[in-house]
Formats: sequence, C-alpha cells, structure tokens
Amino acid sequence: MSLTAAILGANGYGGSGLVRRLRRHPEIGAIRYGSRTLAGQPLHAAWPNLAGLEDGVGDVRFLAPEEAIEGADVVFLATPHGATAPWVRMARAAGARVIDLSADSRLDAATYSTWYGEHPHPEDLEHARYGLVEGHRHELPGAGIVAAPGCNATAVSLALLPFAVEGLLSDQDTPVCTVIAAASGAGRTPAPGLHYPELAENARPYKAAGTHRHLAEIEATLGRARSQGRNLRSQGAFDAYPVSFTPHLVAGIRGILATCTFRPARSTNATELHDVLQDFYRTDSVTHVQNELPDMKAVANTDRVLLASRLDERSGLATVFSVIDNLGKGAAGQAVQGFNVAFGFTETTALEMEAPWP
Amino acid sequence: MSLTAAILGANGYGGSGLVRRLRRHPEIGAIRYGSRTLAGQPLHAAWPNLAGLEDGVGDVRFLAPEEAIEGADVVFLATPHGATAPWVRMARAAGARVIDLSADSRLDAATYSTWYGEHPHPEDLEHARYGLVEGHRHELPGAGIVAAPGCNATAVSLALLPFAVEGLLSDQDTPVCTVIAAASGAGRTPAPGLHYPELAENARPYKAAGTHRHLAEIEATLGRARSQGRNLRSQGAFDAYPVSFTPHLVAGIRGILATCTFRPARSTNATELHDVLQDFYRTDSVTHVQNELPDMKAVANTDRVLLASRLDERSGLATVFSVIDNLGKGAAGQAVQGFNVAFGFTETTALEMEAPWP
Amino acid sequence: MSLTAAILGANGYGGSGLVRRLRRHPEIGAIRYGSRTLAGQPLHAAWPNLAGLEDGVGDVRFLAPEEAIEGADVVFLATPHGATAPWVRMARAAGARVIDLSADSRLDAATYSTWYGEHPHPEDLEHARYGLVEGHRHELPGAGIVAAPGCNATAVSLALLPFAVEGLLSDQDTPVCTVIAAASGAGRTPAPGLHYPELAENARPYKAAGTHRHLAEIEATLGRARSQGRNLRSQGAFDAYPVSFTPHLVAGIRGILATCTFRPARSTNATELHDVLQDFYRTDSVTHVQNELPDMKAVANTDRVLLASRLDERSGLATVFSVIDNLGKGAAGQAVQGFNVAFGFTETTALEMEAPWP
Amino acid sequence: MSLTAAILGANGYGGSGLVRRLRRHPEIGAIRYGSRTLAGQPLHAAWPNLAGLEDGVGDVRFLAPEEAIEGADVVFLATPHGATAPWVRMARAAGARVIDLSADSRLDAATYSTWYGEHPHPEDLEHARYGLVEGHRHELPGAGIVAAPGCNATAVSLALLPFAVEGLLSDQDTPVCTVIAAASGAGRTPAPGLHYPELAENARPYKAAGTHRHLAEIEATLGRARSQGRNLRSQGAFDAYPVSFTPHLVAGIRGILATCTFRPARSTNATELHDVLQDFYRTDSVTHVQNELPDMKAVANTDRVLLASRLDERSGLATVFSVIDNLGKGAAGQAVQGFNVAFGFTETTALEMEAPWP
Repeated sequence: MSLTAAILGANGYGGSGLVRRLRRHPEIGAIRYGSRTLAGQPLHAAWPNLAGLEDGVGDVRFLAPEEAIEGADVVFLATPHGATAPWVRMARAAGARVIDLSADSRLDAATYSTWYGEHPHPEDLEHARYGLVEGHRHELPGAGIVAAPGCNATAVSLALLPFAVEGLLSDQDTPVCTVIAAASGAGRTPAPGLHYPELAENARPYKAAGTHRHLAEIEATLGRARSQGRNLRSQGAFDAYPVSFTPHLVAGIRGILATCTFRPARSTNATELHDVLQDFYRTDSVTHVQNELPDMKAVANTDRVLLASRLDERSGLATVFSVIDNLGKGAAGQAVQGFNVAFGFTETTALEMEAPWP
Repeated sequence: MSLTAAILGANGYGGSGLVRRLRRHPEIGAIRYGSRTLAGQPLHAAWPNLAGLEDGVGDVRFLAPEEAIEGADVVFLATPHGATAPWVRMARAAGARVIDLSADSRLDAATYSTWYGEHPHPEDLEHARYGLVEGHRHELPGAGIVAAPGCNATAVSLALLPFAVEGLLSDQDTPVCTVIAAASGAGRTPAPGLHYPELAENARPYKAAGTHRHLAEIEATLGRARSQGRNLRSQGAFDAYPVSFTPHLVAGIRGILATCTFRPARSTNATELHDVLQDFYRTDSVTHVQNELPDMKAVANTDRVLLASRLDERSGLATVFSVIDNLGKGAAGQAVQGFNVAFGFTETTALEMEAPWP
Repeated sequence: MSLTAAILGANGYGGSGLVRRLRRHPEIGAIRYGSRTLAGQPLHAAWPNLAGLEDGVGDVRFLAPEEAIEGADVVFLATPHGATAPWVRMARAAGARVIDLSADSRLDAATYSTWYGEHPHPEDLEHARYGLVEGHRHELPGAGIVAAPGCNATAVSLALLPFAVEGLLSDQDTPVCTVIAAASGAGRTPAPGLHYPELAENARPYKAAGTHRHLAEIEATLGRARSQGRNLRSQGAFDAYPVSFTPHLVAGIRGILATCTFRPARSTNATELHDVLQDFYRTDSVTHVQNELPDMKAVANTDRVLLASRLDERSGLATVFSVIDNLGKGAAGQAVQGFNVAFGFTETTALEMEAPWP
Repeated sequence: MSLTAAILGANGYGGSGLVRRLRRHPEIGAIRYGSRTLAGQPLHAAWPNLAGLEDGVGDVRFLAPEEAIEGADVVFLATPHGATAPWVRMARAAGARVIDLSADSRLDAATYSTWYGEHPHPEDLEHARYGLVEGHRHELPGAGIVAAPGCNATAVSLALLPFAVEGLLSDQDTPVCTVIAAASGAGRTPAPGLHYPELAENARPYKAAGTHRHLAEIEATLGRARSQGRNLRSQGAFDAYPVSFTPHLVAGIRGILATCTFRPARSTNATELHDVLQDFYRTDSVTHVQNELPDMKAVANTDRVLLASRLDERSGLATVFSVIDNLGKGAAGQAVQGFNVAFGFTETTALEMEAPWP
C-alpha cells in the first residue's frame, strides 16, 4: 500500500514531528504539506533542519490547506483547537480519513462545550475514536477519525490508567497530579511568557485549580477505565473520575514529567504497585515500566513513555511518575501510532524509539 | 556595634550568599572566611565574581576553619550535615553565637537520629532555635544557636503554615506537596547528575515517597503550628503533621517552586484562602501574598517569598504556591534574617529584596 | 541635592536596570516612570520582581511619556533607535538634561544617516557627549546629553581602546572581533528567533560582515583614540579605524563576551599586552584586568567589565577578551555611570559591582 | 556482509553516538560494548534512554575492553587521547581494522609529540588515514586505521578547506577562527567548570592563543590542501598553514559553530565565495552550503554540516561559518562515515541526517 498523506499545520510544532515521521513511513508514498501562512514556500522556510536534505524535500513547497487535502488518503490535522472541526469535515468529505491532533475530536459534544465552547459539527463526533492507543487499541482499526490525546492528558492518564482498571482509585480520594512541562507545548507562536529571557531560569504554575482543559480527557479516561476495564470505548456515557491537576511551565524545549499521588483504595505495597503498572503495559510497545525514577530527557525526541511508582510507607500514599516528549508521544508520535493501528500497520512503524543522549 | 563574623564553608554555595550579605552588613566590622580546601588563597579563587573589587576583598584570604573562628562574635556554619555539630560546639566554646545553615541544629535528637544518624552533641540542641523567622520570631532574640531551615522545608512550610495555624489542615487529609528545585540546592561539588549535558533539557524526581530529610522539619513545623498557633516553640514535644513530599530537580541555577494541595478541614472559598495567607503574613517583611501565580524567577537572587492560592471549585481542593531562591530565603538570606532577629537588628538588614529582571 | 528623574521606556529591558539603579540612587528623590503601553498600570504589571516591595513602589504607576517628563531634572531615554531623538528634544525643551540609551545621540549626523537613516534633529547632536566613560570622562561633566554606548560597542571598544591609544593597532591590520551575546540584547518584544524552544540549545551568527550598526561607534572610538589619545572628544572630525565584527546570539539571558584578535603594530610580548590593559584601566572604577580568561557570568547583573589578554607566540597575533552584562555596563549601568559623571556625583553611585554566584 | 563491531569507551559521549548508529547499521550483525568501569552491567546503566528497548539491548552488557575486542572485525575506539594507541595495537593484532576517535592516530609522530607527548607506537601511524572524508575520501578504502578528526578541527577545516584548495588563503594572512562549543565536547566526567550551576548562563574562552591541540590537525589539513589540492594524503611531509584559533565554551549540550575570517589572497566577491564553497561540496553527502547564516541547532543530533559565507565589503574580509554537532559529524557520525568509506559501504549508511526541531 502506498498512501498519500496530508499534514495541515505542517509549519507548527505538532507538524514538525509529523513531517519527520511520515517522511520515512514505508506505507506513505506522498506527503502534501499544508500551511496557510507559508503556502508557496519551501519546507526549509519553516524548518532550518531540513535545508539541503537530498531526498527532494528541498523542492517540496507548502500548499494552501485546501489544496493539501486534495487526493489525500489520510489527513493529519495539527491545527488549533476550535478551528479544526471544519477541516475534519472537509477532509472527510474529500474521502480521507482523519488523524486529529487538536482537541476538536476528543470529547463528546456536551463536555466539549463546557471547556472549549460550542462544537461546530457535533454530528461528526460519533465517528471519532480517542487515540490513547494503550486504552483504545481495540476500537481504532477502521476508525474514520482518530483523536490524538492532549500531551498532559497522555502523561497523566497513562500513569493512572492501570490503577483505575485495577480498582485502586477510590471514590473517597482525589488524586493530585502535577506536571512539569517544557515550552514547546505552548506552540510556536512567540509570546511574552515564552520569550527566552523571561522563561530562562524560571518556572511557573499555570491554569491551576481545575482550569486546564486537558482535565476533561483525563477524567473521562479514568472514569471509563473504572467501569469498562482495559478496553475503553470512546462513545457512550460514563462517569468522570475527578482529579486535581496543576501544570507548571519550566525552561526546557521538550518533555512532560507527571507526578500523580493518590491514596490506594485498598491496602497495598510497593511491589504490588509496580506490578500493576508492569502487568498493564507488558505487551505494549512504547511504554516501559522501570524501577528507577525516570529522567524526562530519556524520552526526548521519542514516542516512548517511561513509568515508575513509589509507595510512601509513612503516609500510605502512592505516587506514579511518567515521562513523555510532549511533541512525541504527546503529539505527532501518538498520532502516527494511532494512524498505524487505524490503518492496520505495525503499531510502531516510523515511531521514534531511542532518545539521543546527552 | 561592630561585630566580627566568621563564615565556615565560605567557598560553597551557602557560603556565597553569606559572603555577599555580610560584606555589606552595617553591624559587621570584620569577616573571617573559613575554608578547609582553599585556606591561604584569595577569595576570588572561589568566586570569580569578586575578582578585582576595590574594597579590600582582593587582599582577603581564606583561613583554615579553626582559625576563622578565633575572635568571632558570630559564626555562620555553611558546612555539611553531620559534620557541623562539632563546629557548633567549638564556636560556642570560643564564645561565639552560632547561625547554623546545616541540618545539625534543626531537630530534636530523636528525630535527628531517624533521618541523619546519631547526633554527636545532643546536649547542644537545647540551645538551638529554629530560624524560620515567620513562625519563631518571638523566641530568636538572644538565641545561642539559630538553625536556618532547609530550603525545601522553607518553601513548603511557609505555604502551609497559615492554614495549619487557622485549623484548615485536617487530620483526615495528607497534603500533597511537590517541589520544583533548581540545581544549586545540590551544592557545588560536581556530580554525574549535575553535569551540564546530563541535566540540561532534563527534569527528574528524586528522594520521592517520604524519603527526603526535609520532611522532618516540615512535619514538625506544621505539627507545632496546629497546636501552638502562630508563635512556635523550638523546644518541647509535639505531634508531627504528615505530608506527602516529592521534589523534582530541574535545569536551573536557583529557585524552588512549591505546590501544596490539600482538602481544607472545613468548607471554604477562594477569597478566604487568600485572606488566610494575606492576614498571616501581613506584618512580615520578606513575604508577599499575591493574586497572580508566581514566577520562580521573581525572587531569584533575593531573600523574598511570593505566595498565592487557588481553590478548585470542582474538587474542593486548595492549592498553595510559594517561590523562594533556595540560596536566598532558602539558605544565606534566611540565615542573615535569623541573625538579625537574634542580635536585635532590623530584620531585613543586608537582605536582598529586589530581583533583577530578566 | 535631590533630583527628579524620568525614565522613558521604563517597561523594557533597558528600563529595568534603570528602575533598579535609580530607585536606590541617593541623589534622586523622585522617579517618574514613563511607558506608552502601560500608562496607568502599577510597576509590577511590567516587573513581577517588584510585586509587593514595601517602599511605595506598589503605589507607583506608569505615566504616559509626555507626563513622565514633566518637572524632571534628568530624563533617561530607554526608547527605540530612531524614535528617541524627538524625546531628546522635548526633554531638553522642558529644561531637563538627557541620558540617552538609544543610538540617536551617539553619532554625528552623517555617520548616523549611513547606518540608521536621516537624523530628525541633527542640530541637537552638538550637545551630545559619548558616554563611554573610560574614554570620555573628562568631557562629560555638565553635558546636556549623554549618549550611552551600545552594548556590543562597549565590549569591543573597551577591549581595544588601550591598544589604540598606545599605537598598537596598525593601519595594515583589521582586527577581527567576534561577540557572543545573550538574548536580552534583542529587547523584550517576543520574536520567532527568541522564542524559547527556538533559541534554547542553539547559537547563530547575525548581522555579519560589516552590517551591525554598532560598528559605527566602535570604529569612531578607535579612530579617535588613535589620534586623540586617552581623552576622546565626541565632537569634531576623525578617521574611523575599520574592524571586522561578527556577533553571535547564544542561549542566555544576559552577557556579552567579546574576543578581539589583531596583529600588533610592533613586536610585543604577553606581558606588555597585559600591562597596556592594566595601565590604561588602573584608575578606572568598573573595569578589572585579570590574568585568567574571564567568565561572562562573573559580571552578570553588574556594571563591571573584566578584561584579559593573550599573545599567540606561534602566529604573533594578540587576542583581547572582555565580558560585560549587556543590560548593565552595556545599558543601564553605563547610563547611570555617565549620569553620575555628568552631574558631578561619585562615578559608581548606585552601580552594581558584585555579581551573585552561581 | 555481516560484521562484528566492538566499541571501546561505549559508556562515554563518543560511545553514545556509536551505540546509536551501529545498532542500526545494516552491515553490522553484532556489537560488543566495551567499558572498563561498567563491565558486567547492562547498557542502560550508562544510557537511561535505552531502558526497556525491546530489541535485546536490555540483555546486553558491557564487557571489559579486552574482551570486547575478541572476534571483532572492526573496533571503534572512543577512549582518551594518550591511552588509545595501545588499543589500536591490540585491536590490529587481533585482526581487526580500527576506527580511532581519539587523537592518537591523527598526526605524524613528530607533530603528535609536540602537542600530546611521545607517541607510544609511532610505527603504527603509517597505517592511519585521516578520516576527514570530504578531503581524504579517495585514500580511505581499505585503510587499516581511520583517524576520526577532532570536533573543532572538523568545523574549522571544513569551513576553510575549499578556500585552501582554491588558493584563496594567503601566505600574508592568518585566518582568525573562533568557535562556540557546547559542553558535551568536554566529555562525560563531572568537572567544576561543567557543573550545571557554574556553566548555566555563562560563556568562557579556553585554551586561547594557539594552545588548543586541534590546531595541529587544522594547520596540517589546510597546509596539505594548499599544495595537494582536493585529494589530501595523510602520509608524507607538508607545510602547515597557521591559523589563529580561539574556542569558547557555552551553555549548551551539543554543537559547534565556527566563524573563520580571512583576507582573501586575491580580489573576490560574495558570489564567488559562495560558489567556491558550493562547488567544493557539490557532490558531498553530509555538507550543505546555504545562503542563510546557519543555526547550530539545525544539525543537532545529526552528522551534517551547514556552511555559509559572507564578504565584508567595507574591510574586504571574508567570513565563513560552519555548524556541526560535536558528537555527530564531530565524533561518532564522522567515525561511522569513515568506516563506511573504508569498508566500501554507502557513505551515509546509518548516519543521522535530519535534526529534530525544536
């Protein structure tokens, strides 16, 4: 098979990872790069790292988004929240299947409207499958729309998912999840808080106290897991499971480190916590459960997840850690992983598995 | 008054801030710089930033620690945990009062032995006063030993102290405290995890799940505050108040950002949370309670504390944030603040109050 | 004496250092903070580091620039190149003396027009004195306009000035000067190349091959020094001395490191090179000549200059190094230093002399 | 063909890139990882990024260096200068061909002794070929020892090589070369100057004024190029061509940016300078000549080189810029490139060609 793929928003940070992965994907024969602002310009106008590469990229130019969609078998949407739903519609009308990296296909219409405002095309949402592959793998094959999860949602959900499935998350408890997130998660548009001299040597909390929109995904995923077990269903009613979530922006390029602390629903020990993680992810491809507390950098530029757990014997609280690259497993990598499952390819095709070090 | 001060460990990061502050302290007429490894060398052998300053520093050389103590009215100890208690003893035997930046004067003998091993001079501990000025100001004047609190303990304790005093910390709850800490907190000795290429673009949890030794101080302070109210007593029995504490090392030079989440003991609202903080610190000199979530960098190179609070209406959990400079309010600044109160000087004398920006 | 000072552009990076220094200047009784965009807002709207300081800053608000000028004895202009000349005129018309941090008062009209375009008020330039204090100290007292030099020009000029005066710069040679410059030199306005994820872990040359506008100042200063000796005159004809200048932007907040290599006009040795520097700056206040190659960070947040020299015995070329803080000696510090000399105050009043470390 | 490769020093930064590239090299069937300090431990003891990878790496352990050599067809030596020559001897005695990343096979015995001390096995040097592929490609096939050039030498030599060949480097001129180098070039051993808090926000020159040992390689390469033209010979007499070289350490993980300024031997213009570069590298695989001044980060984690030139019309000086990853083209990548040519494989096999961005 040789597919034609389109990438919309190919000049942004989500697009960067898609360009990298799809260019070497053996099942993709042609790529059409869409960018409203750079249409007509060569790829290296956006990506200095691509200057001079010999495989024809130098000749390839960005297209207007509408043009990029034409003739595509699959359209990857790395476009902003709120503005993406119309592209979903247009791509599907043109006969393509969609991998949506925005939030526009992740939630049911009611939840979406709570966090993002009215959804313009709620009727399309029934075709969407939530692309957290580790929970939704079974329902992705053949999906018309795969909704790649948010980066913070991915890190937190994967840390707690096994415990939700195993009944270790209690109704009497609210897990406290904090995240350390590098700057690329905020996108490529210059902004005062991301100006180098302002962010260097700095760290700051943001969207604290239940105001970050990724909470909707996390609470849906954990709620579903508590009632549905391992094979989660994107459609249908569910009871959300509330968590506390506080993200912190730090001075770094890539990476999310999630720290999730909860009181287990029953008496447990450190070994059991570790085994719950280990067992849950035993057959998964991009996750790895380890004893050592993870380095965020050990997954930089990859699509992998490292997880570890600890039990505080004094307080009885469990803490689970996960690290991802927000642009890898948190964006383009997860999108390609979902694409692979949806199209029946080997799940890790074209994924990044080995971080450079240092 | 013109005192002679000695600094032991004047070549380390704790010492750096003491050198800076004591050099301009109007009540200090002479400083003796002690360093085992650099004895005989000029100050700029340790501190390139001091090269060529015209006020005589260039002529000043490090002394052996024993020599530095001679004739000192006050001895600041920026020496390692475990090795400092003998210096306390020697300094006091020489007639000096002591400001101890190590952990060796912070805890009672029993608690100390749990976390650090047997204390070599437990009989000295009765003379120690815990130098968290915002809680112990009343008992510091005249103290023979002021124990400057740990950096993480300072950030977490100041975030939760007002709520402990006001009865908002519940027996049924365990506050979850995470800390983002920059690298200088680990000291000046090169180590693999602090090697530039390993730490840059990285973040990692460490000493998780109740294993960080600053927990002893935090839990003692909060325990005392719950029963003693605002004026804490360093001596005497108390019930520790357990918290969960997870520190994370990030790629930065200075700074601690503490995020403390708890379920208030009674129904409350965002305004009341803010007011509790505001009222508690209203007359304090280095703390500031603000509405905006704080930037860690806003207190870099200072001895100040910025605090803010949030209530998550969805989950009912409160989150309190504090930022300090681990080498400022977290070390040298707090030591000088405690020294000022212990000796009857204006509390903010020679403290750093205004961070440079950017 | 108690002066009223105005700062225009008090919300930018040049303004930041002025706010810090003038607030504690003992000869300044009142400060008026001008900002077009933040007029009416409190200082901490621009400067989170000033939130809550107890000395009345919290009550102080930005004024419109026109309003800030009213009643000022001295006006500091930290406004953009090209837009500042009209403020010079207005401030002087209102009876104030001017310290101009922009390029608008640094050059004669002809040279200015070559690099910046037509000067709107060339007749004002005769009142301007170039505020590189180490070369122009003698002509600054009483000056109506002090033109604070550019940051790169300061670093390069101070490295080569002693050799120009001593006749070691040859007509047959073109010194090759490269600069490593941190990001704040580009100002506070967010821009793609200064977006954290783009600049972190990056370095890039810019304005290479004789296109950087600070060249005009460097070549004028060195040209004057070759004919006028130590006491430079801002007014009057001179022969520019050409140099090669290549700046490089690196991932840092503050600092400039200049590396200047030239073939000495006569046979020399390493000791003589060092002595030329040492002798030239012997009585200066903010410069220090040292044997060790300098750390850029040793002058961060200060108004100092560290210098060192080397002779390559193999090639016979001399290399001189200088480090400054581009926002300190390279901007606000130099402006205040020039102000002090112009107004007859001790030259280092309110300057920053001791860098924090680390 | 399926070769067995050994890597000595597989736990260092040079080793890191070899591990990454050789693991996926299609002509290599087995890898033996040598490390004196980690013998017996799994790979992820050195490389947290390799934890859990599913391709058997988890089972692979470091061997003692002597053991690693056994049965290898090719031995990659990422061991320290001075200590590597004995390994070269041992590996060749065991029947292997050698790729030497150290300095021990780069120079003739006389030059080596000037910079590094007496060479222990000078008789082996006649078998060595200098692995700067862009100049020595023709003599690498079949080589018994390929000496991978130093990182700084690579960046500077590639910038000037085309101009040396074209006769644009003059006997009357000494090119002035400065380098901005990230921290990993100094290796993985913790050291005071590479301690995170000391290097962050810092920059410093080092080994200035003709004292850096890579000068020997640069001057040999340029000297040969001036007399031998494009096809350089590793053996035989030559006249070194002197340059000035000043390296600067900056706060970064990877990367070298070289800036080389010279007075062309004859009248030229900007277009001709560009064309000389362009023509020289037209058929090369990892170099790219561009109009834009290059970003150091555009080649991070790759084995590529980006080059650009400028002519300063005012002074007549030419400046050439090159960027490489010191651990890529400056170490492991160049070693694998040389290996490929020496063994008759496609030159870019297993090289990294596309940098991630951001």
